[in-house]
Amino acid sequence: MKYCSQCGNTVSQTIPPGDNRPRHVCDGCGTIHYSNPNIIAGCLPVYGDRVLLCRRAIEPRLGFWTLPAGFMENGESTEQAAARETLEEARAQVRIGDLYTVTSIIHLNQVQMLYLAELDQPEFGPGDESLEVALFSEEQIPWDDLAFQTIRNALRFFFEDRRNDHFPLRHIELETKPGTYIAK
Amino acid sequence: MKYCSQCGNTVSQTIPPGDNRPRHVCDGCGTIHYSNPNIIAGCLPVYGDRVLLCRRAIEPRLGFWTLPAGFMENGESTEQAAARETLEEARAQVRIGDLYTVTSIIHLNQVQMLYLAELDQPEFGPGDESLEVALFSEEQIPWDDLAFQTIRNALRFFFEDRRNDHFPLRHIELETKPGTYIAK
Repeated sequence: MKYCSQCGNTVSQTIPPGDNRPRHVCDGCGTIHYSNPNIIAGCLPVYGDRVLLCRRAIEPRLGFWTLPAGFMENGESTEQAAARETLEEARAQVRIGDLYTVTSIIHLNQVQMLYLAELDQPEFGPGDESLEVALFSEEQIPWDDLAFQTIRNALRFFFEDRRNDHFPLRHIELETKPGTYIAK
Repeated sequence: MKYCSQCGNTVSQTIPPGDNRPRHVCDGCGTIHYSNPNIIAGCLPVYGDRVLLCRRAIEPRLGFWTLPAGFMENGESTEQAAARETLEEARAQVRIGDLYTVTSIIHLNQVQMLYLAELDQPEFGPGDESLEVALFSEEQIPWDDLAFQTIRNALRFFFEDRRNDHFPLRHIELETKPGTYIAK
């Protein structure tokens, strides 16, 4: 950030009075511009014993498989965001169930929230951001071609939890070094 | 938003190619400026049979009681944010436990995430944003002087759940009309 979005003047990094960390503060009108983490909302859509995955048509990780997920927008709930992303990326209508994974991706300033979800019908297809969309049984999951560590975690937990028929909420912190994480 | 934070030029509201909603787009350099919901992280700190509340020293709702909570910052996890806010507002060290309420406050573009937490010692005091901090038993909760609907919900659920010794995650959507909400 170089310019104030309110008045167009330059901004400087300073700690405002009463604050304890540097912010972008306008040199002209004094507006404080905060930057905070974003929410990535998505789901793990299940149909029978299979899971719906999308192959990414966009960077990052173009060509790799992922669960439908994306930036939560203003004016919606986390569940609505998860359902909307699934409709957009996989052209699939899902019933959103329990919150399943909450991952703080600290180095990206993101919090990913994935819900369990059910497909009533095996109706889906690639949206603009997907090359293809398909259902996978546990044996068919393309583990080496998954787009993100967060997706690998969610799928690994899901198949493990399915054997116990118990799906506790998983809290995960992804640290600065990609690939390392603390799950609980 | 009136000016581009990258180049200082004016911005216009338009739907960028491949998008489906209006964004602030720079008339000069074309940068798309997204606006997304923020996370409010906090906790419900318990000591014995009592809960720690803070009386707000700042607007909104100055003088009313609340649970320690505030905007999640970049570079931290949701749990770290909840613990930091508790330290800042109540000068209390807590052990963060399970995620307890997730509230999509749709009209404010916020998602509030409150954790159950435990105080090991009854050591606390007002931080800069609090007038006073105190422990309350269920009978002592100042129900008519609570700052926010989200806090009322969390406390109501907590005392109800404590009778059953079972604290399921609560998902709540606060709709546009303050005071109305869907809980599940």
